[in-house]
Amino acid sequence: MAAPQYKQLRRSYGFDEVAIVPGDVTANPDQTNIDFKVKNFTFSIPILAAAMDAVTDVNFTALMSKLGGLAVLNLDGVQTRYDNPQEVLTEIAQAFDAEVTLLLQKVYSQSIKENLIGDRIQAIKKSGAVCAVSVTPANTKRFAPIATEAQADILVVQSTVTSARHISKSYGGLIFPELRQSIPMPIIVGNCVSYGACLELMRTGISGVLVGVGPGAACTTRQVLGVGVPQITATMDCAAARDQYLRESGKYVPIITDGGISNGGDLCKAFVAGADAVMLGSILAQAKEAPGQGYHWGMSHPHPALPRGTRIKVGTTALLEQILFGPTVVTDGSQNLVGALRTAMGTCGVLNIQEMHRVEMIIAPAIATEGKSWQLSAYKSS
Amino acid sequence: MAAPQYKQLRRSYGFDEVAIVPGDVTANPDQTNIDFKVKNFTFSIPILAAAMDAVTDVNFTALMSKLGGLAVLNLDGVQTRYDNPQEVLTEIAQAFDAEVTLLLQKVYSQSIKENLIGDRIQAIKKSGAVCAVSVTPANTKRFAPIATEAQADILVVQSTVTSARHISKSYGGLIFPELRQSIPMPIIVGNCVSYGACLELMRTGISGVLVGVGPGAACTTRQVLGVGVPQITATMDCAAARDQYLRESGKYVPIITDGGISNGGDLCKAFVAGADAVMLGSILAQAKEAPGQGYHWGMSHPHPALPRGTRIKVGTTALLEQILFGPTVVTDGSQNLVGALRTAMGTCGVLNIQEMHRVEMIIAPAIATEGKSWQLSAYKSS
Amino acid sequence: MAAPQYKQLRRSYGFDEVAIVPGDVTANPDQTNIDFKVKNFTFSIPILAAAMDAVTDVNFTALMSKLGGLAVLNLDGVQTRYDNPQEVLTEIAQAFDAEVTLLLQKVYSQSIKENLIGDRIQAIKKSGAVCAVSVTPANTKRFAPIATEAQADILVVQSTVTSARHISKSYGGLIFPELRQSIPMPIIVGNCVSYGACLELMRTGISGVLVGVGPGAACTTRQVLGVGVPQITATMDCAAARDQYLRESGKYVPIITDGGISNGGDLCKAFVAGADAVMLGSILAQAKEAPGQGYHWGMSHPHPALPRGTRIKVGTTALLEQILFGPTVVTDGSQNLVGALRTAMGTCGVLNIQEMHRVEMIIAPAIATEGKSWQLSAYKSS
Amino acid sequence: MAAPQYKQLRRSYGFDEVAIVPGDVTANPDQTNIDFKVKNFTFSIPILAAAMDAVTDVNFTALMSKLGGLAVLNLDGVQTRYDNPQEVLTEIAQAFDAEVTLLLQKVYSQSIKENLIGDRIQAIKKSGAVCAVSVTPANTKRFAPIATEAQADILVVQSTVTSARHISKSYGGLIFPELRQSIPMPIIVGNCVSYGACLELMRTGISGVLVGVGPGAACTTRQVLGVGVPQITATMDCAAARDQYLRESGKYVPIITDGGISNGGDLCKAFVAGADAVMLGSILAQAKEAPGQGYHWGMSHPHPALPRGTRIKVGTTALLEQILFGPTVVTDGSQNLVGALRTAMGTCGVLNIQEMHRVEMIIAPAIATEGKSWQLSAYKSS
Repeated sequence: MAAPQYKQLRRSYGFDEVAIVPGDVTANPDQTNIDFKVKNFTFSIPILAAAMDAVTDVNFTALMSKLGGLAVLNLDGVQTRYDNPQEVLTEIAQAFDAEVTLLLQKVYSQSIKENLIGDRIQAIKKSGAVCAVSVTPANTKRFAPIATEAQADILVVQSTVTSARHISKSYGGLIFPELRQSIPMPIIVGNCVSYGACLELMRTGISGVLVGVGPGAACTTRQVLGVGVPQITATMDCAAARDQYLRESGKYVPIITDGGISNGGDLCKAFVAGADAVMLGSILAQAKEAPGQGYHWGMSHPHPALPRGTRIKVGTTALLEQILFGPTVVTDGSQNLVGALRTAMGTCGVLNIQEMHRVEMIIAPAIATEGKSWQLSAYKSS
Repeated sequence: MAAPQYKQLRRSYGFDEVAIVPGDVTANPDQTNIDFKVKNFTFSIPILAAAMDAVTDVNFTALMSKLGGLAVLNLDGVQTRYDNPQEVLTEIAQAFDAEVTLLLQKVYSQSIKENLIGDRIQAIKKSGAVCAVSVTPANTKRFAPIATEAQADILVVQSTVTSARHISKSYGGLIFPELRQSIPMPIIVGNCVSYGACLELMRTGISGVLVGVGPGAACTTRQVLGVGVPQITATMDCAAARDQYLRESGKYVPIITDGGISNGGDLCKAFVAGADAVMLGSILAQAKEAPGQGYHWGMSHPHPALPRGTRIKVGTTALLEQILFGPTVVTDGSQNLVGALRTAMGTCGVLNIQEMHRVEMIIAPAIATEGKSWQLSAYKSS
Repeated sequence: MAAPQYKQLRRSYGFDEVAIVPGDVTANPDQTNIDFKVKNFTFSIPILAAAMDAVTDVNFTALMSKLGGLAVLNLDGVQTRYDNPQEVLTEIAQAFDAEVTLLLQKVYSQSIKENLIGDRIQAIKKSGAVCAVSVTPANTKRFAPIATEAQADILVVQSTVTSARHISKSYGGLIFPELRQSIPMPIIVGNCVSYGACLELMRTGISGVLVGVGPGAACTTRQVLGVGVPQITATMDCAAARDQYLRESGKYVPIITDGGISNGGDLCKAFVAGADAVMLGSILAQAKEAPGQGYHWGMSHPHPALPRGTRIKVGTTALLEQILFGPTVVTDGSQNLVGALRTAMGTCGVLNIQEMHRVEMIIAPAIATEGKSWQLSAYKSS
Repeated sequence: MAAPQYKQLRRSYGFDEVAIVPGDVTANPDQTNIDFKVKNFTFSIPILAAAMDAVTDVNFTALMSKLGGLAVLNLDGVQTRYDNPQEVLTEIAQAFDAEVTLLLQKVYSQSIKENLIGDRIQAIKKSGAVCAVSVTPANTKRFAPIATEAQADILVVQSTVTSARHISKSYGGLIFPELRQSIPMPIIVGNCVSYGACLELMRTGISGVLVGVGPGAACTTRQVLGVGVPQITATMDCAAARDQYLRESGKYVPIITDGGISNGGDLCKAFVAGADAVMLGSILAQAKEAPGQGYHWGMSHPHPALPRGTRIKVGTTALLEQILFGPTVVTDGSQNLVGALRTAMGTCGVLNIQEMHRVEMIIAPAIATEGKSWQLSAYKSS
């Protein structure tokens, strides 16, 4: 007896399962334009530093701005819980693996000091950098006015999964149209991974969407909750929502692929999948200027009852400038990310990110060549 | 010359190959209802402890009941073969790997003592717990009346593969409609994995179906017999049978996904695949209160001529309460299973298990990200 | 510009990628009939021992016959090149890995002694066993008459790939209809893997077909030549040819899946894929009575210019009877193969091999559960 | 809400994912014709040695020609940068892994000496070999006239990705029709991987196309740029372009699969996928006569800002003649490549390369049998 279909399972794809097809035309990498715009802000590189405590602090934000990108300061992390976050970060970096989750749970149980929110924002503004700060949906009503008063430039409202509609019998959920009216700055919201959720978020009038739930192998959200969508599919679906919203409203709301990008190849694929920008965590945590001191951890790792994530040793491999622009002697794609993006655009014959969205991509599992660890492809020079 | 198709091979899916898609709406985890009903019994958590000797004894049953779930005592195992099963369990735990199969074959060749059946049931009843006991089809006619007399509450008839029709020239097979009439308590039957087999079992009037043949990597049924269906497909097919039976009879017979669940992620996926409850073995064998003393083995392992399965060291990692409800410091999804289920339901915007059945799931191979062992997805907090 | 399709690539499947679906009905394993017929010979178990020097010699043939199966003696191997093959076999078993290919090339460059062909056949006949012998297509014209005279019962003509039509400008190829008329005994031919090749071979009037080119991971034919078809697809395609030939001629010519079977699960799947019997190499080389002394190697390994294959250490794990019929304490499916087949048939509710051909099979990659090495599926007992 | 499809992702295939299906007919390997023609040059084996510094120098070119193939000298490598390239090659071979990229960047920053171009070409011509030299698109206008004057026979214009149209605001790109008119010798261009790019290149009037971008596991182009197409798909798409160009122009322009071939199996599959010849790098770097001294590296490895590739130790395993023609005692497909090709053609019943293009190929993942590392397929002899 044949079973009637109970549920349709659509195939999804992650970074490792696809590859970019070179173009019928080629172009000069130096002539590509990779600007990224959020409302009235324009950044010369489409790269954001994640609102994670091992990546972004005041200094890192200033540096990232100088290099053309945007770092987001986490208002829910150690920077707003501790007058001297450096001490705490060192403690985390020096903890043994076995005790680190307990330590993180303790560190993040310390309450947030509202005065530090203002202090951090002002320090960033003083450096001349664009100041983007992130809050959780639950804290938004409380912290967004403080951030506004301190003259932050961009507000990021971010949790594992964020939707335009939240069902709760006990408290009024966060209503984005309301928030948008009370807060003058552009609002970026995330994370979401599906067409419907992304489209609904855009319809609330926000200015950008973060894409990504549970990508990356060491993120344990998928192991703990079973929830997650690989980033190529998530990005393509949200790009479809962006295009639909553009058709219905005339407004172009950028999407930012956030999470799971571990090398230049992944980054390039995100753009071909439809991203307007990417948000990087672990890859920037490797910068000598990053506050994590060679370590990195997820922001759901410290959850008191259901921790998800793991602290990883990423090392401190290079200056941020070198990670972004090279030159480099590493050949694994972890440095000169901007050079990689421009070179990939050149091989695809495109001159800007929107043309990059139309480039062909194929399904090409990395696993197919695993048995041949010493293969070299023949003669290549750019 | 093109070959005509000899046989259609349908693609099936296991836990590791799928992921749950977050909803367009989100909900508060604390407001979810995860009740599970079998006839007139209602359990506050949809989790059963397997009728395996390393998991369930009298004490574990009482504890599981107190925590809102249901443990099933195996009437075909050491509890009814030995006055003092503790001794035997210790011997198994201390055996060397090389000799354990032979030892198990010896241990389980000891005959079942009918008086112990009554004793165990009465001890469970005395604790106030709901008493569910399991028998094999071959032993059902002999042991079911004893269990009835001892006032067991739920009868589980279970073997590797159980069907409503059994072909035998030598003896009359077990006939479920007959059994159902002679036994007053609800009957749960398993295991089955296909639409047809599940539907036929439901039509015999039984009260629940266990789903799962050969799931999990260390179950060697698939290696020894080639037989097995991955759990996502098996659960979806049996859920389709349940819905069909509901349409034709007006009765809702729950299905219980049994086997292969190794973390919260798998558990959540089982519900999205259509399960009304899950039965757990190895994950509960890790409880400090479990009789297996840190070891676990399958009930077809002791087969005298064709042993299938292996003894595994699972360790004793936490109290049962912590495994079910947390809090925890482990981040691999093996603890706080109920918290994981409620959180996943929240990210999917659903408030009960039947809504969970309608959540979207995608094919998203775990293997896709294997090469990136230190990746972290970006900023997450719940 | 979209590429027009240059070539259709059909998906094929190997043993590890499929699983057998249990039936809606179950049956008693002891009541299954697993007879295998080649023309007027009937064997009580559908298992052949491969014509490989590490598996079959005169004694092994006698034993296999007594147990109900059929062993095939290789007339192109050490048994007909050496008066005392035992010495040579010991030398091979004791060679270092680095020198074994060179040694095999030397051993097999010794020419075949025609008198030994008769001697070996008569020794087998004397034991009362059915005597099947194998020759290569190139040697058939020379050796088949000798085998006939010595009263062999079944002739096997076997090479890596054998077809009914062979293109050669330099010599007249082997013509099967001619051979069939000059040789009175049943002829089994192989190996082939496709519908067309199998159907053409059957139309020449031969009595059985061996199926399998390049299966198994340690066979290096696929690495060296790129040639091969995974066994599930090869068996299904040849089964379709068998059924087509039955429709057009009224004659049922059995197919024998040869190669790549490493456990009971694989063996059961071969039958569901359409096999009438299986030919086993490495799994029988593990028998204490096998001439390989714990080692095994392919018959294209000794090729003087292009060796393909590798010598593997399989160990001597049990008596042949135990490998075929159990009982056993190993749980990896390498022993009690007949018990496994009957049990699988029972779970599928079928009573003979032809019913087994109609059982459902699904695509269920083994890899899906690889990450969970200590999982156990819940309660099972047969 | 179902997502509209943002982008179609076509499935692509690499060498490890396919297998060749033996024919319904077989043929004699010795009677196969494997000639390869580029314009008025005919080579008796369809194998080119890559224009990589670890593979091809003057001596290797002479030897390759004598054996019937064609080696391409890289005019952009050490041979034209150093009077005594041997010294530099030894330095590279002796460098530590950690410092090799930096060393290569330094070695290749030395400028090219135009007089050495003439010297190398004349040395090759003097040996009697066909002289093929390779230049990058950027250097073509400068070096092609020098090569012409020195009487090179074939010009190869090669970079990672080459197209017929190049977008550049700053300089006039290389225009192939122009080049073709100013240069009398046949021009081979690459690399490309798609139907459109290949067809456009052919329409410029060039005489051969190299196929392959980012194949092989140790090529890091895919990791760094995300760009690449597995070789089976790339070859099939370019073969479709060749056939289309033949239909529209009456001219047959051969395609050469370049990169990722690690054994005889891969090589045979390239031809079934549509290749007219193959270009080999690492597999020939293993020859005792290769200049790399047991090491090999990609020509985009030395890139000053964005190095892609890695130096690998390949060892020096055999004489070039043995790698191409055997005999051999290795069974991994790395030696006797011509014997492998002829044998595969025999099992497919084809007598020349164009018939080989019509042979059936199936999708048959190598991974399917990975768990069975000691399997042997049954009896085989050629």
